[in-house]
Amino acid sequence: MSAMESWTWPPRYDDSYRPAHNSRYWFPIRETMAPDKRDEAIVQRLREICDYAYGSCSFYRDKWNDAGFHPSQIRSLEDFERRCPVVTKADLRAAQHRAPPFGDYLCVPESEIHHIHGTSGTTGRPTAFAIGRGDWQNIANAHARIMWGMGIRPGDIVFVAAIFSLYMGSWGALSGAERLGAKAFPFGAGAPGMSARAVQWLGMMKPKAFYGTPSYALYLAEVAAKEGLNATDFGIERMFFSGEPGASVPGVRDRIMDAYKAEVFDCGSMAEMSPFMNVAASAESFQGMLCWQDICYTEVCDPKTLVRVPYGQRGTPVYTHLERTSQPMIRLVSGDLALWTNDKTACGRTYPSLPQGIFGRIDDMFTIRGENVYPSEIDAALSKLPDYGGEHRIVISRDGNMDELLLRVEVTAELSAKGRPAMDAFRQQVATSVHTMLGLRTMVEVAQPGTFPRTDFKARRVIDDREVFKDLAQRLRFEAT
Amino acid sequence: MSAMESWTWPPRYDDSYRPAHNSRYWFPIRETMAPDKRDEAIVQRLREICDYAYGSCSFYRDKWNDAGFHPSQIRSLEDFERRCPVVTKADLRAAQHRAPPFGDYLCVPESEIHHIHGTSGTTGRPTAFAIGRGDWQNIANAHARIMWGMGIRPGDIVFVAAIFSLYMGSWGALSGAERLGAKAFPFGAGAPGMSARAVQWLGMMKPKAFYGTPSYALYLAEVAAKEGLNATDFGIERMFFSGEPGASVPGVRDRIMDAYKAEVFDCGSMAEMSPFMNVAASAESFQGMLCWQDICYTEVCDPKTLVRVPYGQRGTPVYTHLERTSQPMIRLVSGDLALWTNDKTACGRTYPSLPQGIFGRIDDMFTIRGENVYPSEIDAALSKLPDYGGEHRIVISRDGNMDELLLRVEVTAELSAKGRPAMDAFRQQVATSVHTMLGLRTMVEVAQPGTFPRTDFKARRVIDDREVFKDLAQRLRFEAT
Repeated sequence: MSAMESWTWPPRYDDSYRPAHNSRYWFPIRETMAPDKRDEAIVQRLREICDYAYGSCSFYRDKWNDAGFHPSQIRSLEDFERRCPVVTKADLRAAQHRAPPFGDYLCVPESEIHHIHGTSGTTGRPTAFAIGRGDWQNIANAHARIMWGMGIRPGDIVFVAAIFSLYMGSWGALSGAERLGAKAFPFGAGAPGMSARAVQWLGMMKPKAFYGTPSYALYLAEVAAKEGLNATDFGIERMFFSGEPGASVPGVRDRIMDAYKAEVFDCGSMAEMSPFMNVAASAESFQGMLCWQDICYTEVCDPKTLVRVPYGQRGTPVYTHLERTSQPMIRLVSGDLALWTNDKTACGRTYPSLPQGIFGRIDDMFTIRGENVYPSEIDAALSKLPDYGGEHRIVISRDGNMDELLLRVEVTAELSAKGRPAMDAFRQQVATSVHTMLGLRTMVEVAQPGTFPRTDFKARRVIDDREVFKDLAQRLRFEAT
Repeated sequence: MSAMESWTWPPRYDDSYRPAHNSRYWFPIRETMAPDKRDEAIVQRLREICDYAYGSCSFYRDKWNDAGFHPSQIRSLEDFERRCPVVTKADLRAAQHRAPPFGDYLCVPESEIHHIHGTSGTTGRPTAFAIGRGDWQNIANAHARIMWGMGIRPGDIVFVAAIFSLYMGSWGALSGAERLGAKAFPFGAGAPGMSARAVQWLGMMKPKAFYGTPSYALYLAEVAAKEGLNATDFGIERMFFSGEPGASVPGVRDRIMDAYKAEVFDCGSMAEMSPFMNVAASAESFQGMLCWQDICYTEVCDPKTLVRVPYGQRGTPVYTHLERTSQPMIRLVSGDLALWTNDKTACGRTYPSLPQGIFGRIDDMFTIRGENVYPSEIDAALSKLPDYGGEHRIVISRDGNMDELLLRVEVTAELSAKGRPAMDAFRQQVATSVHTMLGLRTMVEVAQPGTFPRTDFKARRVIDDREVFKDLAQRLRFEAT
């Protein structure tokens, strides 16, 4: 058979299909075919989904008419990329303001809506996600396929640790686990007191697979230790993460692997893009993520021109749904940062890779004396130090021309017990390490273990506050004298 | 057609079936047939499920062999009730201790398990629920059917406010909403800060239906007021509740209806019994709950003898699954308290009723000078007073022979502003009301608005602490002098 498996528009999957238990691939043809052949199919699909969107909603019709773009112009990937205008999150917010509650980019009748979720932004009007009944099944199919690629198999217990609420991450992992034929354990942390219970249940159920955020996995290992348990006793074999960088950051990744003795996989693009596991690691290609181009089409683009950059370069991912009929995203700008390559993969899938995962946001970047710095790079540098206590804060002062930066870094209890000289040596070590790895001179405050609150969701480590910066700089200069 | 709709063992439903939009009933025959004819079918089904359980797991086989019971003995409901021994929660805990993690009452292969949930008990070993793939669909079917009976229709937005975690309530409501063809909005409160967001989303999405706990609905109305909104602006038409008494307690029910101008429905037996909406109100029979006997068979029993009590009497519900193949519960003692009747229902369903819902736990009862009192009765008495501020605490001192009780009761801000004499009058009013309604003399402390923390889950109002009681009694006696 040379045709691609289940490659139809509108997308429709056999919900009872599963590959042979020992198969590495869910869809061997689609995952390993020659990229140029796949690209031909993607061009055809882009025309189909653009035709569909043009005919089904005013959002795309008006936007494209204004830009002089029409789906019939798509004869190559380059045609699509050059002519089709991008969509931003601000466009979506405006569309929902104009046509509440789901926006004029809803392409199915309201009666088709199966689930409503939304952004969890704390300021301004949040954005609602409306996911159609058929799309929900397609999302489950896509996630099951990708989780299969991570080595998760029917019958495995999949412990979904992250919160079940507006946040799409947990729902996507759950739908994939269900479709895969796993035993889904939707634990859902987030409420006070749940972390101690999570540890108790992990010890009782010994799940094969775990989903959450990297911060929360590290925190749970600390909670386990406090309860007299060892995270390795949970017997978890595979852990997959989204929601924040970390699982692709070598130092963080190593700390998680070390705490659980499990394999660690990064995944996840954006909630709007569900099936958001369109970028994800596989069991053999475990560093960074693959771009599963036949699920969503990814271009890594120059953040300013929004033109695709060559492989080997950094840019912001721009995503296009190939299998969504409700609220399809066509050239949605992520605002994330990634480097992409097209090297041969260890797993044999012929997809491009994001070997460092998603390592920041365009907006997170700060520039210190001419150096572009991302918070995840500091996380990575600290995580390599054996005496690092697991949390830190980056205090910056953005001042137009000249951004400044200070670090507050926790030490381990062992180091703290050794007293002041050891702490001073650690401070020097941090400064040297950050300088070597990032070319960045910074002042460092050493903090006692447990100084900074842990989180059961995404860590917020950057404090952008001129006053906090000034106070702290004052104190550090005083201590240094 | 005289056969009951989709009445087969093992249970199998057409997942695409829906009644006509204007039909009051999901299954007109099953819901309105002559009770004796239904009972005949239930006797047959009890024999089938007991045969199945006897053949599939050692838990029931051993228990029943010890008791001299065999499924072939079931020729009437009375045979079943007299011969089949009950199951207690302690039995389930012991079974999971003996055969971890799911217990020797799991009647399907582990590979059939679709979802894992569990009790949220904070002490001791919690109990895991393993729900099979087919059972999950049957639960969804049963819940869709019962929610249809409440008047919820395809396309309605169903806002599921309660937490998605171990607690089965939200998952059951979600599965029903999905199966019904509603727009499911699994909001999932519980994490800090979510209540203000819930209010924001309710205002944006204006859902037709709402699921949560009564305490949380009342709390959300307060949060709305703080945010300058009115809960009536959400446009909610139907609210259904489980997890604690309240929706059947007239005073509480009235306060919710008043705050939201919505219809209020009580439902829910026990997480172990999923489909737990086996006891639930309907749009026309909105006070208390119906026992949907063809989904789970309910007997209200004398708590000591565990023999069915006549209609019109109080007892503890004992439930038997008629449609579960994974971990079927056969004569599970709830430990709850209810009164049951067999009067003609307003909706025309020929089921027995629990007209006061589930109004307490056997263990919650305290005896004050010979009077048996349940916390929900105090809740009901207070909720009828216009100046009641919405929260209270019941301080008891259990002392073997002589239990004692004090009440701490919040007033409204309006009353509080009127000063001491008004507060004193309210104190007297509470004492009189509790005496009239419950035949109970009690000391009362009047508390300022907002004294007691609100909850996004189940309210815990009883404080059983001898020292707290003594201190408070001392203070009240002093103030009274």
